[in-house]
Amino acid sequence: MDTGQAVDGPTEKCGVVGVSFRDRDAARPLYYSLYALQHRGQESAGIVTHDGFQQHSHVGMGLVGDAFSETDLAELNGQTGIGHVRYPTAGSVDSSCAQPFSVSFKSGSLGLSHNGNLVNADEIREELAGMGHAFTSDGDTEVIAHDLATNLLNEDLVRAVKHTMNRIHGSYSLAISHDDTVLGLRDPEGNRPLCIGKLDEGYMIASESAAIDTLDGELVRDVRPGELVVLSPGGFDSYQLVEREHTAHCFFEHVYFARPDSVIDDNLVYEVRRELGRQLWEENGIDTDVVMPVPDSGRAFASGYAEASEGVEFAEGLMKNRYVGRTFIMPTQDERERAVRLKLNPIRSTVEGKSVTLIDDSIVRGTTSNQLVSLLREAGATEVHMRIGAPPITAPCYMGINMATREELIAAGQSVEDVREEIGADSLAYLSIDAIAAALGEKHDDLCLGCVTGNYPYEIDGEDTDREVERPQIDDRGLPADD
Amino acid sequence: MDTGQAVDGPTEKCGVVGVSFRDRDAARPLYYSLYALQHRGQESAGIVTHDGFQQHSHVGMGLVGDAFSETDLAELNGQTGIGHVRYPTAGSVDSSCAQPFSVSFKSGSLGLSHNGNLVNADEIREELAGMGHAFTSDGDTEVIAHDLATNLLNEDLVRAVKHTMNRIHGSYSLAISHDDTVLGLRDPEGNRPLCIGKLDEGYMIASESAAIDTLDGELVRDVRPGELVVLSPGGFDSYQLVEREHTAHCFFEHVYFARPDSVIDDNLVYEVRRELGRQLWEENGIDTDVVMPVPDSGRAFASGYAEASEGVEFAEGLMKNRYVGRTFIMPTQDERERAVRLKLNPIRSTVEGKSVTLIDDSIVRGTTSNQLVSLLREAGATEVHMRIGAPPITAPCYMGINMATREELIAAGQSVEDVREEIGADSLAYLSIDAIAAALGEKHDDLCLGCVTGNYPYEIDGEDTDREVERPQIDDRGLPADD
Amino acid sequence: MDTGQAVDGPTEKCGVVGVSFRDRDAARPLYYSLYALQHRGQESAGIVTHDGFQQHSHVGMGLVGDAFSETDLAELNGQTGIGHVRYPTAGSVDSSCAQPFSVSFKSGSLGLSHNGNLVNADEIREELAGMGHAFTSDGDTEVIAHDLATNLLNEDLVRAVKHTMNRIHGSYSLAISHDDTVLGLRDPEGNRPLCIGKLDEGYMIASESAAIDTLDGELVRDVRPGELVVLSPGGFDSYQLVEREHTAHCFFEHVYFARPDSVIDDNLVYEVRRELGRQLWEENGIDTDVVMPVPDSGRAFASGYAEASEGVEFAEGLMKNRYVGRTFIMPTQDERERAVRLKLNPIRSTVEGKSVTLIDDSIVRGTTSNQLVSLLREAGATEVHMRIGAPPITAPCYMGINMATREELIAAGQSVEDVREEIGADSLAYLSIDAIAAALGEKHDDLCLGCVTGNYPYEIDGEDTDREVERPQIDDRGLPADD
Amino acid sequence: MDTGQAVDGPTEKCGVVGVSFRDRDAARPLYYSLYALQHRGQESAGIVTHDGFQQHSHVGMGLVGDAFSETDLAELNGQTGIGHVRYPTAGSVDSSCAQPFSVSFKSGSLGLSHNGNLVNADEIREELAGMGHAFTSDGDTEVIAHDLATNLLNEDLVRAVKHTMNRIHGSYSLAISHDDTVLGLRDPEGNRPLCIGKLDEGYMIASESAAIDTLDGELVRDVRPGELVVLSPGGFDSYQLVEREHTAHCFFEHVYFARPDSVIDDNLVYEVRRELGRQLWEENGIDTDVVMPVPDSGRAFASGYAEASEGVEFAEGLMKNRYVGRTFIMPTQDERERAVRLKLNPIRSTVEGKSVTLIDDSIVRGTTSNQLVSLLREAGATEVHMRIGAPPITAPCYMGINMATREELIAAGQSVEDVREEIGADSLAYLSIDAIAAALGEKHDDLCLGCVTGNYPYEIDGEDTDREVERPQIDDRGLPADD
Repeated sequence: MDTGQAVDGPTEKCGVVGVSFRDRDAARPLYYSLYALQHRGQESAGIVTHDGFQQHSHVGMGLVGDAFSETDLAELNGQTGIGHVRYPTAGSVDSSCAQPFSVSFKSGSLGLSHNGNLVNADEIREELAGMGHAFTSDGDTEVIAHDLATNLLNEDLVRAVKHTMNRIHGSYSLAISHDDTVLGLRDPEGNRPLCIGKLDEGYMIASESAAIDTLDGELVRDVRPGELVVLSPGGFDSYQLVEREHTAHCFFEHVYFARPDSVIDDNLVYEVRRELGRQLWEENGIDTDVVMPVPDSGRAFASGYAEASEGVEFAEGLMKNRYVGRTFIMPTQDERERAVRLKLNPIRSTVEGKSVTLIDDSIVRGTTSNQLVSLLREAGATEVHMRIGAPPITAPCYMGINMATREELIAAGQSVEDVREEIGADSLAYLSIDAIAAALGEKHDDLCLGCVTGNYPYEIDGEDTDREVERPQIDDRGLPADD
Repeated sequence: MDTGQAVDGPTEKCGVVGVSFRDRDAARPLYYSLYALQHRGQESAGIVTHDGFQQHSHVGMGLVGDAFSETDLAELNGQTGIGHVRYPTAGSVDSSCAQPFSVSFKSGSLGLSHNGNLVNADEIREELAGMGHAFTSDGDTEVIAHDLATNLLNEDLVRAVKHTMNRIHGSYSLAISHDDTVLGLRDPEGNRPLCIGKLDEGYMIASESAAIDTLDGELVRDVRPGELVVLSPGGFDSYQLVEREHTAHCFFEHVYFARPDSVIDDNLVYEVRRELGRQLWEENGIDTDVVMPVPDSGRAFASGYAEASEGVEFAEGLMKNRYVGRTFIMPTQDERERAVRLKLNPIRSTVEGKSVTLIDDSIVRGTTSNQLVSLLREAGATEVHMRIGAPPITAPCYMGINMATREELIAAGQSVEDVREEIGADSLAYLSIDAIAAALGEKHDDLCLGCVTGNYPYEIDGEDTDREVERPQIDDRGLPADD
Repeated sequence: MDTGQAVDGPTEKCGVVGVSFRDRDAARPLYYSLYALQHRGQESAGIVTHDGFQQHSHVGMGLVGDAFSETDLAELNGQTGIGHVRYPTAGSVDSSCAQPFSVSFKSGSLGLSHNGNLVNADEIREELAGMGHAFTSDGDTEVIAHDLATNLLNEDLVRAVKHTMNRIHGSYSLAISHDDTVLGLRDPEGNRPLCIGKLDEGYMIASESAAIDTLDGELVRDVRPGELVVLSPGGFDSYQLVEREHTAHCFFEHVYFARPDSVIDDNLVYEVRRELGRQLWEENGIDTDVVMPVPDSGRAFASGYAEASEGVEFAEGLMKNRYVGRTFIMPTQDERERAVRLKLNPIRSTVEGKSVTLIDDSIVRGTTSNQLVSLLREAGATEVHMRIGAPPITAPCYMGINMATREELIAAGQSVEDVREEIGADSLAYLSIDAIAAALGEKHDDLCLGCVTGNYPYEIDGEDTDREVERPQIDDRGLPADD
Repeated sequence: MDTGQAVDGPTEKCGVVGVSFRDRDAARPLYYSLYALQHRGQESAGIVTHDGFQQHSHVGMGLVGDAFSETDLAELNGQTGIGHVRYPTAGSVDSSCAQPFSVSFKSGSLGLSHNGNLVNADEIREELAGMGHAFTSDGDTEVIAHDLATNLLNEDLVRAVKHTMNRIHGSYSLAISHDDTVLGLRDPEGNRPLCIGKLDEGYMIASESAAIDTLDGELVRDVRPGELVVLSPGGFDSYQLVEREHTAHCFFEHVYFARPDSVIDDNLVYEVRRELGRQLWEENGIDTDVVMPVPDSGRAFASGYAEASEGVEFAEGLMKNRYVGRTFIMPTQDERERAVRLKLNPIRSTVEGKSVTLIDDSIVRGTTSNQLVSLLREAGATEVHMRIGAPPITAPCYMGINMATREELIAAGQSVEDVREEIGADSLAYLSIDAIAAALGEKHDDLCLGCVTGNYPYEIDGEDTDREVERPQIDDRGLPADD
């Protein structure tokens, strides 16, 4: 699967970060850490800082490099702050939903960077609207901000967060700034990643540990599901606000979204992918002349696969053109086919006259897979077998990933054989759910497997769940959480 | 005074417009009417429309021509809508304060375009914050929006507007969209202009009648102070929500801001300026070889002055370069002096060897006046007399005009003779307040003369007022206005 | 006629400037002087400087303000240089024809800024091509550059220029840089303007004296027809290279193109226009309630007309919107009519119930005139009479003005009565050629009247000429001019 | 070495392409093929087409995607044309040198796309200047254009090209359009690559075969050293204009510049690199825990090295951030060090506690190598050994590669041990020249090895050559080449 030009791929909706420094400005470190998280959102980027007196905010459209000028950074004063990169949901590509979302209210100012998706945002919005709240966007981040601001009228910060946490349901990893205090909050099921880092003169939270590396910091640990961490330049306080029996970690972060060099929930993504590649060989290995990755996403899988095979040669067979980007003028219909070659060109010598195993991390719509199989055949492959480092995706994601609708998913309602025929491969095999769980060292019950089982760990209208979800009671505003 | 490149001039903060059509899209008419109001705000432009189901919004930075693309207009569906052009207050040139301000809340969506300035916005904001409201900007328009949204929870539209009107204090001309209903509201003192127009297939409100002309419409009348008008494609309903003994019309709209071709409170601006020019001759005429305007602002005054003099020749003596604009690279210090010639160049033949009367509408900081007197002397004028179509400006404006601080005003705390000496003219005379009132056909008590008397028709912290201002009681939320 | 948004108006093709300083950088003065000449060309702007060792060049598209950044100016080193603003001829709006045109050749570097049009460029180009010359553009400026470079192989600078001058035929005012020497050259008929200015630490040449004013300089005199001036920081050398019995000054510069504050061939443009206005009254005055200009072009004419009438009131009756510019989104067909009101809006009080004389400088296509007459009638004018400050334009310009084709000219092949009917006026009168000549103090034979007589002072294929034109012999390359 | 953000790497100056179609427009295929060659030049891109009547040209700054709009492509009419991507030489980043260079001259129009560098351009320029030619740029492409245009005055196309070829000395692969004829020309030593492709309805030439793949075409063969090919839609004519005993192929194309999926002089680049990796093991293999590439340039080498080692584990140990691009705001001095981590982040698990061999294709300045060694040590590597897939670079390139000056080259005048110490590796080994020659199947005498031996196959002022170079006689213009 291809992140660069995701015709066919899912897109993560967001990356978040927060820092708290002593004697060091926050803006530039935040800027560099957003570069490290750029793969998690490419439609807008923003930073909110606080200088002890007031909040500063800049949000720009496009990549981090386009969203900020030197002047923008210079005006973001203060030693604490949060940042955000964002992929838009359908239909809202304008700047009104770009984050961090910042508001001022009775007891100060709030900034929110959100990764994830609430499933009960509408209910809470309605309740708040009933109290007279007016909303400038239709995003769930504004709902969290208003809810938190309302709680802060009568409660201290930790109690207010807990109160809000008892009301919202869904997936969320949040970097929050309340004046010059920076908080990290992860939903009770720990669906999206969030980790804590120690820096030279401060502490940080980030969606992925690679952002910590970028600032030359040290990964302390993941934020725990249901945990609130309150950063200070010298450390962080931890509040385990909610505890659940099971987690609902998104396995797809490991398979596809996260950077290979990030450590998520104690697993290095690169190693997980290599191990999944090895499992792929164990479960469905096939002895072809050569095994090659779909660049760049299949590379770690293919390397593990080749290693486990103890004999199948690993080779790069597809050359990726990294220059095809946003400003590309699309080919006309009859040139469309040719344009696949512009993005991925077969290296003939690795392919010609050979049986080939092609490794990718996943298949979503199937269009690209089909084109790649054709490309390889045209380049002279005698056989083309596909091996996929994840189970078939058969259901949509409601937890913050922009994947596809059920209608668009090639594996929804089709057998593996149907899919194989549609993409034109000689054979096709997916990885099992067991292999995924084993590689992550987690039980099935601690993973969110909704997109491959159709059974979700959250209560979602029109979808199944086996879990006894503790759905929050929205009408509990008047009653402070019993703590 | 020079609007194009206001080094020295006051800037109006806003222009507003609203339309309600039958079978005709609102976006393009709104776009063209914003062009007609461009002189009232050049930092951002925005349009909000409603298509019967949902609200559409686009706000862009810069001039109207830069703020909208064809695509932007095409996406602004619906037959009703409002628009806004804006001059920023100090320190907030970014897009977060650009208008119309749009929110959704319990009973629908609201869009607000605001011209004016509240003097008690902070109080209301604090009260609303105490109820849990969170604010995304520090502007007073958001305060009005939240207040109105809160009232609409329990009240119908007209009562809710009246309720808000009883709480806010200051100057405001508002174009409001509540779903697909468009309202016009003018503060009880009628400080800023607002008028009603009849169009081919609908009705409109606008800051100035020139916007109505632009759409080939017909000026119906001004919105009355304290009046709410509710537009429909076939007409409008009027609600006189508040009535006051005295108005507080801004005389400066006539002297400086408004377009000459606009009719404001029953007076054509061009005619008012000609009459002021005539009065200027009557009060302080001086028999020089020639009278010339500072282009373009002094032209109508100078033409009236010349006419009344029955003998002093009217001539253009200063040529204005219209290309000096935003992207101009400023000269270095030693070139600065030369650069005045770039903007205004004397026409030598009209000046050389002649005694000259130079007419301008007002003097704010005095810098430009000083430069112009020098320019004319260098071009060979034997005498340079200045005549100003307004009284000396000695106090700041709190009602929505970005004029200057007291320290910057050349006439604050100085005699006319002091000012004359500073600008280097042979003589200097201002127009009297009586002449202004006479030209407008209004009593002193019905004008806002704060900037020339220091005595305001509103209760402003640290400033004087002779008026018995009916300052609203903010704590009246629980008590529906007695109506 | 309207220069700002020339829907209907002719466009000057170019403005040129050159400076030679001692101890002062040329770039910024050139930049400011291009601002002063911006009305002569708005499609591209460029500057070439020379620092004693090498030539520096920057050419950008659009207005001067868009074409140069601070960095661009900083890199244009040197104390001598030339500049150019340009209107493109049809079909070549890209940057390849933008000027100054700069080349390096055997004996140094050349920069050329050209205003005018050669009528024998193709012949010379062909001859040079026959010698192996290759051309990067199809402009006549490159032809002059190559011809001059070829002559400079064997001749000193003055002889080489004279040699080229004996070969090219047509209108040209040139600012030329040959390494760090700056030259001004005007064609033997003096068709386009060019003047000499004295500055603080140097000398300059410019298309119009307003550019000299802008740099706080002093107009020395016009460059004479057929004269070459070689600037130095301390003065200039004059070479009268060619002398002709008659000049062919373009009268249209005075009527339309030039700035009112410029002095061209000893006449202040503003005074010429006022005088033409007076003549217009003498020849065809009509006693209406009011006389009003088409802004801004008709203003000086109308003021002279009103003065001469000793009774007809001068008033502004049309308000111009200066914000309608390049990025304007054109109205749909049915809104087109409305959009005229966006650009020019009648001031009703000056018009309603009155007989009106409307003054413009010229009529080209007639479209705008027609719309204005309608506008005034709709605004309540009882009669609308048009008076034009030039004779009917019946033939195209070949000398460097982008006017219109014969087919587009409303007066070509039509009587004045036909034109009157087409534009819908109650009466229409033009100014006579005699009046033009008288106002300029020139004989008919010393003016280029091609566009109003169809008889040209140059030999043009397919057009008439009464003049015994000394058409150059192109094949005289081997024979140095006899001097 | 890193092409994306070449802080430390050489840059190829150009990529060229030309197509000749029947019944198919050339512009879009040229556009897509420039995308395929984007790695060869990222500063400007241009296309020249010919529609049978006239030449069309568009050149823009930046990447291909930025240089062309849909409109630009639509205006490039015609079924034949050439294209160019370009890296600027120092000091000329503006558009004046961007290519293709296009001129019109006596017998038509010429477009030239040039990859390479002439060593006698100044001599020819001087000679042509002596004949009166004027040059708009200081590039050698314009020199070739003028020379060719001059020859075409008296000679047919093939003779004229041969004549020019006998006069110019250096490296050049040229795509030339002469009206609607497209030519490919490669210098007698075949220094830069150029190949011929067969397309659906035409033929093409391109710097690399990947461009042919992109258009779904078929590689026919390389253009031979000294060969001129004249394309037509149905085939091509070949003229072997010059023949030399030895070629001077640039080995660095294979090591670094060219795409892995291109075939150059009969060798697939990917296979060459894998073979060089194998040789690297044979010559200087070291038995570490793991071997890892510098991404992306070292990947093929490392994979061959690992394979040959039969035991050293291949792993990705450095993660590259592809988003760090042109608009990146550089870190302050004290953040600089941290920023390396932004571009390349170690994957700790592959590195920690392990001895590591790091493979790169070459070392130029050595800065990046030093940083990478440090990074790996910080990530826990016990030993870091560097192996380089090319000999030490000790001398500059004069043949069209923007490499570095002698002073900047870390290996110039230093022993391998010196370099090792400077970059801080535990051991360092380069590949031998013999291995390079073997992998390419060429003799030393048929390669250009100037940058690694200081001995050049061309006569260059101040540099050594062992070859009996047939330096052209420039003064032979009058004498048609004896053919």
